[in-house]
Amino acid sequence: MIIVKVGGGKNINLDYVCEDFALLVKQNRAILIHGGSWKRNEIAEKLGHPTKTVVSPSGMVSVYTDEKGLEIFLMVYAGLINKIIVSKLQRLGVNAVGLCGVDGKTLEGKIKKEILIQEGERIKLLTGNFTGKVEKFNPKLINLLLENDFIPVVCPPALAKEGEIINVDGDSITSLLAKELKAEKIIFLIEAPGFLKDPNDENSLISEIKKEEIDKYLDFAQGRMKRKILAIKEAISSGVKEIYIGDGRIQHPLLGVFEGKGTKIF
Amino acid sequence: MIIVKVGGGKNINLDYVCEDFALLVKQNRAILIHGGSWKRNEIAEKLGHPTKTVVSPSGMVSVYTDEKGLEIFLMVYAGLINKIIVSKLQRLGVNAVGLCGVDGKTLEGKIKKEILIQEGERIKLLTGNFTGKVEKFNPKLINLLLENDFIPVVCPPALAKEGEIINVDGDSITSLLAKELKAEKIIFLIEAPGFLKDPNDENSLISEIKKEEIDKYLDFAQGRMKRKILAIKEAISSGVKEIYIGDGRIQHPLLGVFEGKGTKIF
Repeated sequence: MIIVKVGGGKNINLDYVCEDFALLVKQNRAILIHGGSWKRNEIAEKLGHPTKTVVSPSGMVSVYTDEKGLEIFLMVYAGLINKIIVSKLQRLGVNAVGLCGVDGKTLEGKIKKEILIQEGERIKLLTGNFTGKVEKFNPKLINLLLENDFIPVVCPPALAKEGEIINVDGDSITSLLAKELKAEKIIFLIEAPGFLKDPNDENSLISEIKKEEIDKYLDFAQGRMKRKILAIKEAISSGVKEIYIGDGRIQHPLLGVFEGKGTKIF
Repeated sequence: MIIVKVGGGKNINLDYVCEDFALLVKQNRAILIHGGSWKRNEIAEKLGHPTKTVVSPSGMVSVYTDEKGLEIFLMVYAGLINKIIVSKLQRLGVNAVGLCGVDGKTLEGKIKKEILIQEGERIKLLTGNFTGKVEKFNPKLINLLLENDFIPVVCPPALAKEGEIINVDGDSITSLLAKELKAEKIIFLIEAPGFLKDPNDENSLISEIKKEEIDKYLDFAQGRMKRKILAIKEAISSGVKEIYIGDGRIQHPLLGVFEGKGTKIF
């Protein structure tokens, strides 16, 4: 089992990603997980309800999701990006099925209605939040699809125990699914050549990371990359053998990482 | 097999619909098909790209869908409304799975890139259209879900042979699925007590229509209702025994039609 996680950045080339993924599924069991943050932000802006990003006192960046923000999230992730990917794969002969965590109660999580955020020197309490943490994977639907030659294309949100829809992190979904489906490989496709020592310098690629050393890279990681490295750490500890971070903007983004482009964590 | 088609009107009460549907699936095999036109129009308006409705020379009303309109369609139907219904059903203990026609290539259709429209006295040609006609149902995914106790929640769009995503009519999907899945009953839930002799008078409900007489009701039918009656005619000719048109705004919209509220076509 190989899990491919495609980020939601503006310059990710979904045509290139789907072309490679269509080759990958000929030889391997695989699932595609995707984001949609750039498009979500664009639509949110146009609808006059811009995405609100907050920073926790421990420095983790996340999105504060109110009810309207959740609607926009659903529209862009589960509607627009998910079905565009599915249609591109169908065009390439891959019998893809799109689903989000709500479908078949595939992903359950905990809602964090109230969150503490750091604003300058002050710590503030925000309420009415629909961002949460994914905690449980119910495999029935995805296994059924895989056993019957359908290729799952998965995205957040998840479902809370109370029945609410919750915005959860795509990288956390990736490490959870990798663990539960006993994936051998994960490939994260992002808007950079791989994991960079200096996020502003595309020539500072770190080509290899030994899994024993992953902790020290948490110091380099900034913003969203911090969350990704934490997800990678989770995946390593649950037995995933090889994890790649590759460039989702270029042709052959998946074949590329296997040929040594990008960052390999093993 | 019972097929419930929920319209996309502003005053449709999805909570009431889902409560009744959750009761229905305890005793029957059932599928829910939904629209989303009101919300689509609202979001399209807010995004500065209002929905363009056109009338064919033969008097059929339809939506002209350009590329941006298709994106909005995907967002609202396959993203927002579909997942809100799925989450409501999950909360009621129904293991619902949302899908659109693109998923598993469930619905295929023909794209009408160029359409003739009537504008006053003139007939005009419009190009770049992504509205089409649903023509083929590939049952594998929906049957697999039903056989494994998942309840499908289905919406447009469909997939064209050329791989494009196409906006197709929800009522046509309903009659196609009813035929292919050999449904005994269809219930259409709309924003009216049923089929009205005078669309502006809610007291002009026609309670019963003999199926032999359906043709004469095509004369009464105006706008969207014309399309619905054509879909009903299709469904009758493919062997569906009972078709109901009921009020999607009221409590117990489904139990109501079986108790004689609404219009029964049989």
